[in-house]
Amino acid sequence: MGELLEKCTAAKLAAQKMARVSTVTKDNALGAIAKALVERTDEIIAANKTDLENARKNGIREAMIDRLTLTPERIKGIADGVLEVKALSDPIGEVTGMWKRPNGLEIGRKRVPLGVIAIIYEARPNVTADAAALCLKTSNVSILRGGKEAIASNTAIMKIMQDAAYSAGIPEGALNIIEDTSRETATQLMKMNGYIDLLIPRGGKGLIKSVVENATVPVVETAAGNCHVYVDGAADPDMAEKIVMNAKVQRPSVCNAAETLLIDKAIADEFVPRIFKALQAENVEIRADEKSRAIYSENIAKATDEDYYTEYNDYIIAVKIVDGVGEAIEHINKYNTKHSEAIVTDSYERAERFLNEIDAAAVYVNASTRFTDGFEFGFGAEIGISTQKMHARGPMGLEALTSIKYIVRGNGQVRG
Amino acid sequence: MGELLEKCTAAKLAAQKMARVSTVTKDNALGAIAKALVERTDEIIAANKTDLENARKNGIREAMIDRLTLTPERIKGIADGVLEVKALSDPIGEVTGMWKRPNGLEIGRKRVPLGVIAIIYEARPNVTADAAALCLKTSNVSILRGGKEAIASNTAIMKIMQDAAYSAGIPEGALNIIEDTSRETATQLMKMNGYIDLLIPRGGKGLIKSVVENATVPVVETAAGNCHVYVDGAADPDMAEKIVMNAKVQRPSVCNAAETLLIDKAIADEFVPRIFKALQAENVEIRADEKSRAIYSENIAKATDEDYYTEYNDYIIAVKIVDGVGEAIEHINKYNTKHSEAIVTDSYERAERFLNEIDAAAVYVNASTRFTDGFEFGFGAEIGISTQKMHARGPMGLEALTSIKYIVRGNGQVRG
Repeated sequence: MGELLEKCTAAKLAAQKMARVSTVTKDNALGAIAKALVERTDEIIAANKTDLENARKNGIREAMIDRLTLTPERIKGIADGVLEVKALSDPIGEVTGMWKRPNGLEIGRKRVPLGVIAIIYEARPNVTADAAALCLKTSNVSILRGGKEAIASNTAIMKIMQDAAYSAGIPEGALNIIEDTSRETATQLMKMNGYIDLLIPRGGKGLIKSVVENATVPVVETAAGNCHVYVDGAADPDMAEKIVMNAKVQRPSVCNAAETLLIDKAIADEFVPRIFKALQAENVEIRADEKSRAIYSENIAKATDEDYYTEYNDYIIAVKIVDGVGEAIEHINKYNTKHSEAIVTDSYERAERFLNEIDAAAVYVNASTRFTDGFEFGFGAEIGISTQKMHARGPMGLEALTSIKYIVRGNGQVRG
Repeated sequence: MGELLEKCTAAKLAAQKMARVSTVTKDNALGAIAKALVERTDEIIAANKTDLENARKNGIREAMIDRLTLTPERIKGIADGVLEVKALSDPIGEVTGMWKRPNGLEIGRKRVPLGVIAIIYEARPNVTADAAALCLKTSNVSILRGGKEAIASNTAIMKIMQDAAYSAGIPEGALNIIEDTSRETATQLMKMNGYIDLLIPRGGKGLIKSVVENATVPVVETAAGNCHVYVDGAADPDMAEKIVMNAKVQRPSVCNAAETLLIDKAIADEFVPRIFKALQAENVEIRADEKSRAIYSENIAKATDEDYYTEYNDYIIAVKIVDGVGEAIEHINKYNTKHSEAIVTDSYERAERFLNEIDAAAVYVNASTRFTDGFEFGFGAEIGISTQKMHARGPMGLEALTSIKYIVRGNGQVRG
């Protein structure tokens, strides 16, 4: 508890000072950070080597090792990301409304920092720079708690960021990393009420679950994505194939990739063979319902109810033939994680119905679910994708890291 | 668990249907509810009699009994409150932004219901109608869990609301009350992840604490208010007295009443005797620091550090003399609950500094803290006052009961 309490206390003090730091100072600090990350690449590479050696010793699988590996090019990419955050406009201080009451009170609503934001994340060390830069840009203090696999890399990156930021006028205590990567410390962090204004978990299902169950501080849940593409009877089959393939195979490991394909029975006889062949050509394993197996081949694996609930994040897709847009909506609202859902159709009425009735952060007509992303949405940044409905939903840009404050100017008003 | 799981399941189903109910149907239902509450006043009074008898039997104190008591006039007041909610404009469906991306995707951001809102509250039965009406207006399903003291009244009010709403076309399951008032059921309700999109506690410190510690569903914390008035050296003493007295004694039991008075040492010699006499004339107990006791009288009770942390909700005030606006801000940011804070001053520079540096939902210059309220702010309604920074801060009107959904229209876009 020593390190955690000490850093949380420093963070809370720094948050008060951060609320007064100017945009110019923040942007100068982000510029200095980007420069320092490139200049001190050797230190980061050396630390990363330690992490990689430990990973190999612990038999971590190759895909993870790739995520963990830093090269000068990747570090340049991280520094460029910091410069992109620098280039965004500062939301803090923006007045989002102002009105006068009959008693003469003038009420203004102003964007202010949330205060202290804690982020618990897994392997990838780029999240360290990314998350700390977004918090700094929005005058928030960050407390990062990364996974033990990347702790040497994360600590090296954070040290460089702290040096550069504090030299540029950012108050000490505004950027923090918890070096103790034990599970106990993570759980304590989730319960630091009074110190932490928002906790964002970034990682797999296990991490999200642990945060939701243990946290007593406010949380935004992120990232579980059991996304669907529904190919309607009125779809252009070429467009449908293009969208299904993009949503499934362009990057299957991410949360906005499709996991289940729903096909309108009206076009199943033609579309099932076509799309199954295309999927198999890309080595996608198909788990299908009885009807589509009957159309295509009994050699295809059977989909269970469990399959429809599963976010594979892999070259696997579940398939079901449905009786039109109504059953598609019903299926999706039952099995989805409220992330991203798409319909392919040329029917105006069915498109509108799908947009209105699907319960998800992002609902698409004739486009791939893969676009749910802060950059693709034009926010210029992303701290995560919220799958809950309160505070922020969908891709979280800078505004999701702000709160509001009411400023009330009077001339002696009292309540009667 | 039987009743709770059954009602949560029904609520979740109803939430999907509620998302499609028109404004006209919702407003008709609110009109029908108001009418039915008045027409069936006798039923409510009879149920209330049961609650009152139990309360007397259990030796509940008189102030609580007054809060619990319903009369035909109070029921008329509750019905009028429902009509006020009806008269507000419907935020659901409002498009709060729409833009086109370079790839041709059109992205719109639309206000949607949160889904299922649970409210755990204490004695006053008017909260039942109030909270259910606000949820209905915003197409949310409500699950109310009131205190055992008012359970007969709450159940009677809810029964009448359900009858009226369902007859007017609101889907069954959209309005719910948990009749089991055991603590275990309340705790289970706080953990119904997957069923509840937002939980709002309305009540005393004990309730809020229990919700923050136990809830795994998303919560908005409400209502703790340790509010301050700072009388600056440049204040008009008449205005300062008027504001201090209003903030303290106009209604001491509420969260936006002042609990601590800070006085600039520059005017302490004149202002302390004046305001202490005025407070004592209203039977306010003063707990003061050494300096103000030395100015006024050693007979005044000494303020402890604990006093400065306390929300009395009573005719008690803590007092401290400070060395100008800087120490006032420091004191407030240390001891406050981020609710409402006021400065009385004629100095432009100190007013601006106070507005910028105080961390609270509402910050006032030359006005009473008592104005922090959805009605006083012009929102036309209030479901509570959030003292957290995420999702909603300060008075929560209809918009605080909404989420957003991104609607994306394409013509075959896939991600490269």
